[in-house]
Amino acid sequence: MTTGVRRRMGVEERRQQLIGVALELFSQRSPDEVSIDEIASAAGISRPLVYHYFPGKLSLYEAALKRASEELSTRFVEPQEGPLGARLLRVMHRFFDFVDEHGPGFSALMRGGPSVGSSRTNALVDSVRQSAYVQMLAHLGIPDPPARLELVIRSWISLVESTALIWLDGRRIPRRELEVKLVHDFAALSAVSAAHDDEMAKLLRRVLKNEPGEGPFGDLVARLISLAS
Amino acid sequence: MTTGVRRRMGVEERRQQLIGVALELFSQRSPDEVSIDEIASAAGISRPLVYHYFPGKLSLYEAALKRASEELSTRFVEPQEGPLGARLLRVMHRFFDFVDEHGPGFSALMRGGPSVGSSRTNALVDSVRQSAYVQMLAHLGIPDPPARLELVIRSWISLVESTALIWLDGRRIPRRELEVKLVHDFAALSAVSAAHDDEMAKLLRRVLKNEPGEGPFGDLVARLISLAS
Repeated sequence: MTTGVRRRMGVEERRQQLIGVALELFSQRSPDEVSIDEIASAAGISRPLVYHYFPGKLSLYEAALKRASEELSTRFVEPQEGPLGARLLRVMHRFFDFVDEHGPGFSALMRGGPSVGSSRTNALVDSVRQSAYVQMLAHLGIPDPPARLELVIRSWISLVESTALIWLDGRRIPRRELEVKLVHDFAALSAVSAAHDDEMAKLLRRVLKNEPGEGPFGDLVARLISLAS
Repeated sequence: MTTGVRRRMGVEERRQQLIGVALELFSQRSPDEVSIDEIASAAGISRPLVYHYFPGKLSLYEAALKRASEELSTRFVEPQEGPLGARLLRVMHRFFDFVDEHGPGFSALMRGGPSVGSSRTNALVDSVRQSAYVQMLAHLGIPDPPARLELVIRSWISLVESTALIWLDGRRIPRRELEVKLVHDFAALSAVSAAHDDEMAKLLRRVLKNEPGEGPFGDLVARLISLAS
């Protein structure tokens, strides 16, 4: 990055460059440990110039987080075609790609730092959860879910988050196993809910009726039968 | 609360009284909405005197949260006797009692306010999660768990938290149903993990071998069989 390049950058372009540089650093190490000096150096500009575009590290962090949130939300988008289990599995795979790429930043964010203090970062995290929820409803084809289905989906999303955080802490379980396990967890939590409520049982039957035996849901049933025997 | 009482209170006693008063107010309304004036008034002392004991609302909030955390941790304690499913169900019942009693404060805390900003409050929440985790290990009789069991327990704890938060938001599902469902969720998540891993399958068989048919685990199996048929 030469000063010749710097002179040609407009304000918005420079802001976007800084956001990209910051996001990359925040993805490699906990944002708490990344200094404005480092960001300036990686962007090839001076520290005061960084402050010209962002009044402080928190505002740059929030901007980086906003970009990451938008990127993560796009990974939930999956064509509404073919068996549900296979769709969910592809989404889990892309989600773990994201977690893998942004590990330290993802952990720091979800564990409440360095922006412990910013209700804006909480709002961003909630917006990602909400877009995951909306995507799930679209895949299930149920725009107006009963309370129990909303509970299953939202609490499963929190299970996905915590599973990713625990995975990042040592990576002791292969991520491919966890991607499949989370799809199975969704099926299992839905089944438990259906075991408590007739409306959920009807929904589950409708959703599962086109699932092939060789998909993740069929695989779970086969595994459970083998476990029980 | 008369001034006669006030004069007799020592420093620690007064601090404890203020913590109790604040905790009660924070349990009825979001801590963001509770003012120091209100706390002073409810405690029967002046606003400056509150500041004499606590330098600001955050420090009083943290002290109240600390007391609530300790109280919540005691509710996880359950004699290690009798079937596991019934023990877990009693703990879930006491957990929902706590959530019910401290609703607005619990929501505000878990959604990241008003102490968005305090790493001490995050540490307190983590300490409650940790004590729940340690209790679970003790009940399972597995002091040194493999990675997959740790994952099942910790991610289930996050599922319990999110279920409680969703319940508080409108209370659209009877809490008794959710208490049983969460015990069933634990069994279901364990079964999925066992379906992926032989060590988990062995652990699950050992844990379940003394569970009676009429307990929560037997109840789940009966429900699922009826659902499948």
